[in-house]
Amino acid sequence: MEKKDMLSRLAAGEVILGDGSYAVTLEKRGYVKAGDWTPEAAPEHPQAVEQLAIEFCRSGADVTQTFTFWCHEDNLPKDCKYTCDEINQTSCDIAKKIAKQYGTITAAGLSQTGNYVDSSSNAKAELDLRRAVEIYIKNDIDVIICEYFRNIEEMEIAIRVAKETDKPVAATMCMAPSGDENNVSVRECAVRMARAGADLVGVNCLFDPNILLDVMSEMKAALDQENLHPYLMVQPLGFRCPDGGNYGWVTVPEFPFACEPRQITRWEAKKFARDAYNLGIRYIGGCCGFEPYHIRAIAEELRDIRGKVPQASDKSDYELVKFKEFESRGIHRYKNKGSESWWKEMEPCTGRPLSTALSRQDNPVTIHKAIFK
Amino acid sequence: MEKKDMLSRLAAGEVILGDGSYAVTLEKRGYVKAGDWTPEAAPEHPQAVEQLAIEFCRSGADVTQTFTFWCHEDNLPKDCKYTCDEINQTSCDIAKKIAKQYGTITAAGLSQTGNYVDSSSNAKAELDLRRAVEIYIKNDIDVIICEYFRNIEEMEIAIRVAKETDKPVAATMCMAPSGDENNVSVRECAVRMARAGADLVGVNCLFDPNILLDVMSEMKAALDQENLHPYLMVQPLGFRCPDGGNYGWVTVPEFPFACEPRQITRWEAKKFARDAYNLGIRYIGGCCGFEPYHIRAIAEELRDIRGKVPQASDKSDYELVKFKEFESRGIHRYKNKGSESWWKEMEPCTGRPLSTALSRQDNPVTIHKAIFK
Amino acid sequence: MEKKDMLSRLAAGEVILGDGSYAVTLEKRGYVKAGDWTPEAAPEHPQAVEQLAIEFCRSGADVTQTFTFWCHEDNLPKDCKYTCDEINQTSCDIAKKIAKQYGTITAAGLSQTGNYVDSSSNAKAELDLRRAVEIYIKNDIDVIICEYFRNIEEMEIAIRVAKETDKPVAATMCMAPSGDENNVSVRECAVRMARAGADLVGVNCLFDPNILLDVMSEMKAALDQENLHPYLMVQPLGFRCPDGGNYGWVTVPEFPFACEPRQITRWEAKKFARDAYNLGIRYIGGCCGFEPYHIRAIAEELRDIRGKVPQASDKSDYELVKFKEFESRGIHRYKNKGSESWWKEMEPCTGRPLSTALSRQDNPVTIHKAIFK
Amino acid sequence: MEKKDMLSRLAAGEVILGDGSYAVTLEKRGYVKAGDWTPEAAPEHPQAVEQLAIEFCRSGADVTQTFTFWCHEDNLPKDCKYTCDEINQTSCDIAKKIAKQYGTITAAGLSQTGNYVDSSSNAKAELDLRRAVEIYIKNDIDVIICEYFRNIEEMEIAIRVAKETDKPVAATMCMAPSGDENNVSVRECAVRMARAGADLVGVNCLFDPNILLDVMSEMKAALDQENLHPYLMVQPLGFRCPDGGNYGWVTVPEFPFACEPRQITRWEAKKFARDAYNLGIRYIGGCCGFEPYHIRAIAEELRDIRGKVPQASDKSDYELVKFKEFESRGIHRYKNKGSESWWKEMEPCTGRPLSTALSRQDNPVTIHKAIFK
Repeated sequence: MEKKDMLSRLAAGEVILGDGSYAVTLEKRGYVKAGDWTPEAAPEHPQAVEQLAIEFCRSGADVTQTFTFWCHEDNLPKDCKYTCDEINQTSCDIAKKIAKQYGTITAAGLSQTGNYVDSSSNAKAELDLRRAVEIYIKNDIDVIICEYFRNIEEMEIAIRVAKETDKPVAATMCMAPSGDENNVSVRECAVRMARAGADLVGVNCLFDPNILLDVMSEMKAALDQENLHPYLMVQPLGFRCPDGGNYGWVTVPEFPFACEPRQITRWEAKKFARDAYNLGIRYIGGCCGFEPYHIRAIAEELRDIRGKVPQASDKSDYELVKFKEFESRGIHRYKNKGSESWWKEMEPCTGRPLSTALSRQDNPVTIHKAIFK
Repeated sequence: MEKKDMLSRLAAGEVILGDGSYAVTLEKRGYVKAGDWTPEAAPEHPQAVEQLAIEFCRSGADVTQTFTFWCHEDNLPKDCKYTCDEINQTSCDIAKKIAKQYGTITAAGLSQTGNYVDSSSNAKAELDLRRAVEIYIKNDIDVIICEYFRNIEEMEIAIRVAKETDKPVAATMCMAPSGDENNVSVRECAVRMARAGADLVGVNCLFDPNILLDVMSEMKAALDQENLHPYLMVQPLGFRCPDGGNYGWVTVPEFPFACEPRQITRWEAKKFARDAYNLGIRYIGGCCGFEPYHIRAIAEELRDIRGKVPQASDKSDYELVKFKEFESRGIHRYKNKGSESWWKEMEPCTGRPLSTALSRQDNPVTIHKAIFK
Repeated sequence: MEKKDMLSRLAAGEVILGDGSYAVTLEKRGYVKAGDWTPEAAPEHPQAVEQLAIEFCRSGADVTQTFTFWCHEDNLPKDCKYTCDEINQTSCDIAKKIAKQYGTITAAGLSQTGNYVDSSSNAKAELDLRRAVEIYIKNDIDVIICEYFRNIEEMEIAIRVAKETDKPVAATMCMAPSGDENNVSVRECAVRMARAGADLVGVNCLFDPNILLDVMSEMKAALDQENLHPYLMVQPLGFRCPDGGNYGWVTVPEFPFACEPRQITRWEAKKFARDAYNLGIRYIGGCCGFEPYHIRAIAEELRDIRGKVPQASDKSDYELVKFKEFESRGIHRYKNKGSESWWKEMEPCTGRPLSTALSRQDNPVTIHKAIFK
Repeated sequence: MEKKDMLSRLAAGEVILGDGSYAVTLEKRGYVKAGDWTPEAAPEHPQAVEQLAIEFCRSGADVTQTFTFWCHEDNLPKDCKYTCDEINQTSCDIAKKIAKQYGTITAAGLSQTGNYVDSSSNAKAELDLRRAVEIYIKNDIDVIICEYFRNIEEMEIAIRVAKETDKPVAATMCMAPSGDENNVSVRECAVRMARAGADLVGVNCLFDPNILLDVMSEMKAALDQENLHPYLMVQPLGFRCPDGGNYGWVTVPEFPFACEPRQITRWEAKKFARDAYNLGIRYIGGCCGFEPYHIRAIAEELRDIRGKVPQASDKSDYELVKFKEFESRGIHRYKNKGSESWWKEMEPCTGRPLSTALSRQDNPVTIHKAIFK
């Protein structure tokens, strides 16, 4: 398999597919603890992490992210037998091993430290960020993704630190349409990330695909206006949370143990991918809630652009051939099921007549227009 | 780890936990094709099947089922490189390997052949069933589960064939409250399965936990009345389908590609397990839609009965300690989240104001009272 | 206007339209007290009762019912200045006055007394019923409707008492698909009402149109089987209550002060009327929740059968002419609104994302299949 | 009964209650044609209009509005036997007659003409407005309400024309949170209405109570900032339309024939009234969808402020005495029903599992935060 540099591939017009969720998916498989969300599973159960990495590769991801999210000494469980460095090292080992097998690009996440106070007092945060980068460089990870920052100032530090290397740097804020945690606007954040040197700019996590596409649309407008042209990138939440307010997913009552009814379908993943592509986004992936089949659905959706389907499509009837045949045989319960547009236009029934559509929030929030897409 | 005979354990009052869904879970991981639902992944990608088997073991399952569902020559994909026998053999190998590691009981499913016509012409069906049993016996599988039969007559043949071995035999119909495919009543089916010699009697798949618990309640009444006392067993669907009518899950418009909103939460799994236990059911597992975290939730729910929690509970805050702490720190968005009863009483919001609760069915069906549980 | 005898009109094949709700409609207008539901408004505010009677006549009702429901001495408010006899008398006066103006048939309701115990001790109930009939006869009311009985035994007494007059007698139980208050089946009740001599037989109130049409379907089957041929009659509740269980409307949490979201639309009234007609029902009206526009909608729906539209149709664009024109002018927000079938197939949005579809009931009930119509 | 000047009463701190909907309520009674919405019923069926006026008076309205909405020659039905002047005259007669009986203030609405083009060409609009005012003055109507204007410029003309008389002038825009039809902001509109001389300033129609309370909150802030102190007034739509976008009610698919599920309950009316009062609004009424019982509910809610309940409260168990008694007798189906706070906190079930909460809009709109109140 080819393995060109990511920026060259982007420059050549390619759409890069990211992978999906490690922490949330591995929680359901029994290897990550909800509430902690730390990645000690990498050294504890490497085969489980490898298996998930393989599934994302088979599903069409061009990137294998290291499973290093939220890996700070303060956050690890008290009885954890591994240090952050050991966890990060194993995660790098796993990513590199699988990437080698499947020809994917390795990427390491640099996420908010929890130690950032303000611009006058950021030494601790910068130190933490720098230390993480060192490990990634030592392991020769291909790309650094500064992600899940809710404060643009800390993000700027992260980009600066990452840019001291010679790696491509992606930067995705974790932000609502209303702005970062200090209400710095979406537009300003986009411009500041680009000016700080990020090669890719965008958003990830906490908000659902439609909300983040609206955020991306604003980012693009602001960048265009300033004549800045980083590549655009988006990795949204895989749960529908129009009622999440400014903190998104984590404020709905169902977080983190009862979000099943909110999880997006493969059709919602496809529609997201097409809309993202049409908006000019060229790094498209998923965050919490995106499982392998969501990534495969994206890859299949964009097969006209990418000229290929992923390995796991050998187990996916993405042209609905069998379902068209069932329909043609007049099997009533398969009515419509051979039609991709029928599936895409469907709003799935919930089977839950005792559930409400939205949650009551103590602090009323505006429901985003994205609800209607 | 101990490895007592299943019937001895049941006789000693133990609750046996089954495992969850292979086909539906592996479809989401990219190894099973929806529409086919055949198990050729066993020889094709054994590590993926093993990984799922391990996850169920870690989640507390006492049983490791062979991944052999719907393995008939007629059903395998045209380009499949493996024969049924090869698939069954690999599946047995995987189950036995993992069972040995985790001390679980191996079980093999004997499911409806698709060849059964009527009682006067059942030779082909019997032949198919007998052939499958032979492989299981050759592999010394511990238990035979006759499951997913929609016709009590074919089920009786299966039980008879299975009983020719010296293995414990479980028998679970796949039936609605209205009866089998010929409208033989739930009560009659229960009695006939017991009279045919099944050691365990019950239902599995296509209907959600609450519907199947009502079916089990009727089965129990009928068996008690006839003074028959097989162990009771249930492995329901993991999707809420009160609108499914007599064919359940497969008739809702969302089947099989948009069922996310219907998937049960871990709390719904726990409530199901407690109700099942209280009803006297002693083999409790899940079918399509039950993922490892659902099985773990059941194991944790019944820890008072079973006197233990599973391995994967080291990654599960099943007493909500951390969430209680968040609450006690006054973090508003964690309000209530330390309370197990709050979670259990919650009907999760769907995040889907454009979705309906139920599907419109062309042939009106009665919505089962179980909707209200 | 013509004024033929009701039975002659029915014998000639005419469909008789009943009127709608007095008590519930006048509650909203400020003249009836919820909880009491007594008709003292007749003498207190005769113009308000007359106005409603006029509205029903203008809407196409062939019948003007006396506003005498639940008029028993024990039920009247403590401070009521009128006796039951005075109330009944004024109600008869009003009905006769309006009937004369609009050429309608007068009908008086004979409803359950609240005094019925059992067949061995029914003297008080019979006395009450007989006394009410006397007033109706004194006023020469055209038809007696024995309605809102939940016990078939008391209904039989009522029919017997009513049949001692020479008036046509209609008999409508207030019953769920599960039977009367002692679980006497729908089928048996139908047969017993017919055998007791009722000229019209059917059901009224507490259950929504679709549920009662299913009940009527069973009644018809039972009557046909016994070769009994009374005219069929139905006057359902105007609120959707699939979750009401065996006592219907009064058991939902919203009763009686928050039922707006459950109220049927005019299109639901039309569909009900057409289905009722197709089932062979020839006396079609409404009970609680049917307002004048619902009756008009029924009259307009059945204009092909009845060969006329009512007076109030001069204020009803029942062929959607204006809305077709708006559509044809390309006014986007009127899209579809000129199409009757679009309106009839619509399931109206609720505007209520914090509401559930159904109520949680302490005693689980089966949701009636009528939910899907 | 007292009949003080409205401004004096407001100056003395009194809360003035408006009445409710004529056009929509009379449409349901068979006297107004949906689509036309013109008031020719006044001369055609004066007793029907009088009856509704009486009901509002009995329900506690301090004001009797003339039924003159949308009375322009161009809008009257082709076959209408009456001129606009005749209709307006009869409507004035009715209002004055009932106002005299019940001691209410008469008010006449001056609404947008449909002829306004822009500020350079407004002669026709001004002429129409002036002509309407002349009739009101000739009839000595007490108050002029400039209402249902979607353009602030035309509103300013209307206020100017109305102020040429010596009558108190109220001015209510029909506007979304996003501004008037030219996107002039809520804040600017409020200030301009006050500067144009309106004694009362606010909004009416098309948007539900919660949305309009948010609009009022903005208006108040703007007026306070400019040190302007007109009285505040609100008369919202009686249907929940969070999905209505900038044109509100008229853009939802259910308008105008299937809005039942969206109609507010009496508890929602009460909560609205209390919130409006707390916000400093002193003229509180309702527009389309507010029926007499909604006005009564408002009057009862504010009985602590107003020191009285209306006449129609003799048919309203506003302290839930009877329901408390039912509860105390342990009648299960009345559980909670004696508690006002239970009713107010209830989100009513819809009985409609095949309905969605919101409508899909072709042009996505932001769902207003008011959804959560």
